[in-house]
Parts: sequence; structure tokens; C-alpha cells
Amino acid sequence: MKLAVIEGDGIGREVIPAAVKVLDAFGLDFEKVPLELGYTRWERTGTAISNSDIETIKGCDAILFGAVTTVQDPNYKSVLLTIRKELDLYANIRPVKPLPGIIGVTGRSDFDFILVRENTEGLYSGIEEIGPDLCWTKRVVTRKGSERIAEYACKLAKKRRNKLTIVHKSNVLKSDKFFLNICRQTATANGVEYEDMLVDSMAYSLMMHPEKYDVVVTTNLFGDILSDMCAALVGSLGLVPSANIGEKYAFFEPVHGSAPDIAGKGIANPLAAILCVKMLLEWMGEQRYPVIDEAIAHVLLKKIITPDLGGKASTLEVGNAVAEFV
Amino acid sequence: MKLAVIEGDGIGREVIPAAVKVLDAFGLDFEKVPLELGYTRWERTGTAISNSDIETIKGCDAILFGAVTTVQDPNYKSVLLTIRKELDLYANIRPVKPLPGIIGVTGRSDFDFILVRENTEGLYSGIEEIGPDLCWTKRVVTRKGSERIAEYACKLAKKRRNKLTIVHKSNVLKSDKFFLNICRQTATANGVEYEDMLVDSMAYSLMMHPEKYDVVVTTNLFGDILSDMCAALVGSLGLVPSANIGEKYAFFEPVHGSAPDIAGKGIANPLAAILCVKMLLEWMGEQRYPVIDEAIAHVLLKKIITPDLGGKASTLEVGNAVAEFV
Ligand SMILES: CC(C)[C@H](C(=O)O)[C@@H](O)C(=O)O
Ligand SMILES: CC(C)[C@H](C(=O)O)[C@@H](O)C(=O)O
Repeated sequence: MKLAVIEGDGIGREVIPAAVKVLDAFGLDFEKVPLELGYTRWERTGTAISNSDIETIKGCDAILFGAVTTVQDPNYKSVLLTIRKELDLYANIRPVKPLPGIIGVTGRSDFDFILVRENTEGLYSGIEEIGPDLCWTKRVVTRKGSERIAEYACKLAKKRRNKLTIVHKSNVLKSDKFFLNICRQTATANGVEYEDMLVDSMAYSLMMHPEKYDVVVTTNLFGDILSDMCAALVGSLGLVPSANIGEKYAFFEPVHGSAPDIAGKGIANPLAAILCVKMLLEWMGEQRYPVIDEAIAHVLLKKIITPDLGGKASTLEVGNAVAEFV
Repeated sequence: MKLAVIEGDGIGREVIPAAVKVLDAFGLDFEKVPLELGYTRWERTGTAISNSDIETIKGCDAILFGAVTTVQDPNYKSVLLTIRKELDLYANIRPVKPLPGIIGVTGRSDFDFILVRENTEGLYSGIEEIGPDLCWTKRVVTRKGSERIAEYACKLAKKRRNKLTIVHKSNVLKSDKFFLNICRQTATANGVEYEDMLVDSMAYSLMMHPEKYDVVVTTNLFGDILSDMCAALVGSLGLVPSANIGEKYAFFEPVHGSAPDIAGKGIANPLAAILCVKMLLEWMGEQRYPVIDEAIAHVLLKKIITPDLGGKASTLEVGNAVAEFV
């Protein structure tokens, strides 16, 4: 098993080493392949990610990723979008689950659902045209893309409460009627209970009744918006992990960015990155992954927490405490 | 002044009469033109809205609208989308402001902002193609569409705290870089302070820091999603009004739907429809519109409220109480 480790920029360089401590505590046989990608690299060399980097990554099985800073420069190629595309990471998975003792913006902690976002098409097609007075982007929905994300969501639902919510805007977009129909058929074929929701109603409902949901499947940009919104339920964008999964590869990244304002101080919260390690272990089939939840509950109870949660611990202290418990 | 009054279906038939009582209390010189449109009409005649209805509406100055039930039938033409398009109602305005004593999902009441949604293009272009294996919809952003919505938002900001937030996804969509640039130029030309936010970050930020915003401008579907989400801040979709405004016409509708489950019982909450009357009066230049806020504060304090807010009053009782205060 080969793991590419990409710290990236800013706090990515702090949370990933802490998360790696936790991973190491499992004593698994890993070859780690460190790679420098992103803004710092771009400043130094003029490329954020090169073809040879992509080849190196393709030689690995999985990727643990911190964060990269992006710049508004036509020559700057998004590292994240490039890797998603090159490795065909079609499923973007974001679990939305409260952490013990951490209260989100609605004050409730009775929810536990997973957002499954189609990660390769929709408005991310890259098919666009720019004119002086009119620009357009094609939102593309394919049968293959919809089928495989629906299959993924159904498999997940069967391991959980067997309930799928399909999110779409089929009252306006024919492409979403298509997506909805394929998801319904896939759910029926898999014996998964399903319902569907318009994306606008869903944004409201997730805030009002998050306890209702189990697995939620949707198209690319809707998933992008809803998953950030749901971080408010958990309490902070700094606490949510994500996985980008394909047939062959898997890529794990905390949802937070590189946070230049707090970078270099050793105070960044590593819990999202540590939860990425949990997702990595689960993906590999390592049965001991739930111990990470226990370890996190333990450090939260002991108040070994970073300043953003009201504590005094450093990034590495939290990482070490979780690793020790493991 | 001619006002088309379209109750529509379900609770639209209950909240609009209550709202009309409030309007009548202002003693203004109005000609009311009642029109039956929507699902009930479709069942009876096979058309939800006809060309001659549109002509009648175009003969009016403004429209007060309840709600229509939609059906999944290829022959069913959306009344709402048809009217928006025919009257070129390019600005969809949704104020997000707490009502006295009503606590939203985050428990806070220190926010007061207005969402300005471009209402004619983006993913609502209707330019789509459906194949057996691939479907697409064109997301269209024009200079004209972006300029006029940015102008509208700037005018609004100047009457308020002079702060504009431009919401986009320009890191993925070139059409949104175009939108963002036009909004920035318009803000600069108007002397309005501005900032910009990615739509995913904005969904999070609106939940975490709603107090930060004054006027928020965005493209069609992003506005659709964010505005429903923001109803959770206020406490209920049943409490938020909206205006669809064009050069010539204006159309006012509560954000809630026809709610078939509670229709016919006389218990629907008319406050959103009454807030639509307030928006109508403001649009007309009638200076007394703020008295509606006072009247609503009064009925809320006196607990003359419908069952959804924990009260026992009927739709019409609330309408009468607000009208009396006025
Ligand atoms: C950085 C950006 C391109 C990315 C996306 O839109 O997918 C991010 O918001 C995410 O959710 O991973
Ligand atoms: C009914 C639907 C077409 C409409 C929209 O998407 O604009 C509604 O959600 C709204 O926000 O007014």
C-alpha cells in the first residue's frame, strides 16, 4: 500500500503531520510518498501540479491531502480539480455527524448523515464559452455518471439505515429529471428506500430537520453548497473531513482551506485531518477505524483541544494525544 | 393603479384574502383584478395560465400572488416561471429579518439583510438538450442581466448600510467570473462598498455570521437555494415574503407553497402574505408601509397567531387584527 502525502500550503503543513502521527499509531505497512504541490510550489517553480506529479500519484493507492491556497491567475491550475479529474474520483463523501460536546449552530446533535456528491460532471464540466456580452457553462449530466454515483450511495445506505434522499431541481432542469429518474431506478434495483427533495427545500430542511436524513445523493455543485452549509450543523468547517473516491483511487482531505491567517503558529485544529485518516482506514478495510472516534471523544473530554475550540493545545499535541489513545 | 390578485391553490386562497384586508385598511385607490390561475384551474380547463391571462396581467401594474400547486405533467406550464419571464421580472428580492419574538433555528435575531437574486437567466435559461445517455442545460450569464441586477442591488444598498456581498462560484465557472466583475464595476461606479464570497462559503457563513450581511446579490439558482436556507434563520418558510420586480411590473408572493395538507382549514399563517403587502406598498412609494411591521409586532405580542406559531387564531382573525391596527 502506497500513500501519497500532500501537505500543500498553510495549515495543511501542520494538520497533516499531526494526522500522520495518528495513522502511524496503527502500525500498518504503508509506503508514504511525500509530494509538494500547490501555491508555495507554484511560487517557486511556476507550476502547482505537473504531469509527472500526476504520474507519481497514479503510482500510489491513496492520497492524504492537507489544503492548498489558490490564486486568481489564469496560469494557476487547481490542484484539487486536476487530481479529481485525472484519477476519476467520482464520489465526494462528506459525513455530517456531531462531535461529542461540540455544539453546532442549531444547538442540536441528533443527526448523522452522509452527503454523497457526484464529483466529475454537472457544472464542473469545463465546457464554457466567454463572449463580451454573454457567457455560458454547460451543466452536463450523463447516465454513466448518475448511475455510478447512485450505486455508490445505495451501497452506503445499505450499510446504514437504508434510506436515500435524492436532491435535484427537476422542476426547472430537465437534466435533473434525468438524474432523479436514474437514482430512483438504482434505489429500486438495490432495495433501498428513497425519497426526493428539491435542492432549495433541502437546504431549508437540512437546517430544520437534519435528523431525518441518512444518505443524501446529489449533483456536483449542489453537493458543494449543501456540504459547506452542513458544516454549520457540526459547528465548524474546521471539523469536517471528506473523501473523494474512484474505482481505483481514493483521496482524503479536510474540508477547511489553508487558512493563511493562522498558518505557521501551530494552533490549527487537526481533527478534520484526523477524521480523514479514519475515512482512509475504513476505505482500506482496516476494521479498527472506529477507535479514532473514541480517541477524539477522549481528547475532547480531556480538553486537549486547539484555541478555536477554546483550548490551549497545539496542533501536534492534539495529534499526539489522539495517537497515544489509539 | 391596477392590482391583479391571484390566490392560486391551497392556502393561497386563504392567505391572500387575509392580506387583502390589510391592504384595504390603507384606503388606497386600487382596482383589483381577480384571476384564477394554477392547478385547480388546470384541472377544470386544461391550462394553468393562458395567453389571455398574460394579457390581463400585463394590463395591471402589480400582482399579489398566493401559491400554486405544481404537477409533474409535461403539459403543465409553471405559472410562476411564465409570469417572471413574460413580465421580465429580473430582480427577486427576499428580505431576511427576524420577526419579534420568533426564534429561528440558530436562536439569534441580530441579522437584517436582503437577498437579491437575478431572476431571468443562469440555469433557468431553458436551453437544454436531452439524450438517452447525456443531458445538458446551459447556464447563461449576460452583461445586460448582470448589470441590471447589480444596479438594483446597489440602489438598495445605498438606502441601507451601503454594503454589498457578491456571491458566485468564479473558481469553477468562468460565467461567474464575468458576473463578479460586472458586479464589482457597478458597485464601484455607485460608491457602494463590496466584498465577494464563493457560494459554498457563503452558505456556511450565512448560518454562522448572518449579522455580517446587508445586501447580497447572486445568480438565479444560487439565490433560490440560499433564500430557502435563510428562511431557517427566520424560523419558518411560512414567514418570508418575496418580490419579483421588473422595469414596469412587480409581483409579490409569499415564499411558502400551497400546502395542500393544511389547506381548507383556515389555519394557514397569513404573515408572509401580509409582508408581501408591505413590500407592495413600499414599491408603490406609499410611505406608511412600516406600520405593517408595527402591526405584526402587535399581533405577535398579543398572541393573535396561527397554530404553526403555537396560537389558536384563524388566518382571517390574524388578517383582521393586523388590518385593525393599521
Ligand atoms: C476549491 C473548489 C474547486 C472545491 C469545489 O468546488 O469542489 C471546494 O469548494 C470543495 O468543495 O472541495
Ligand atoms: C417553483 C420554482 C420554479 C421556484 C424557483 O425555482 O424559482 C421557487 O423555488 C422559488 O424560489 O420561487
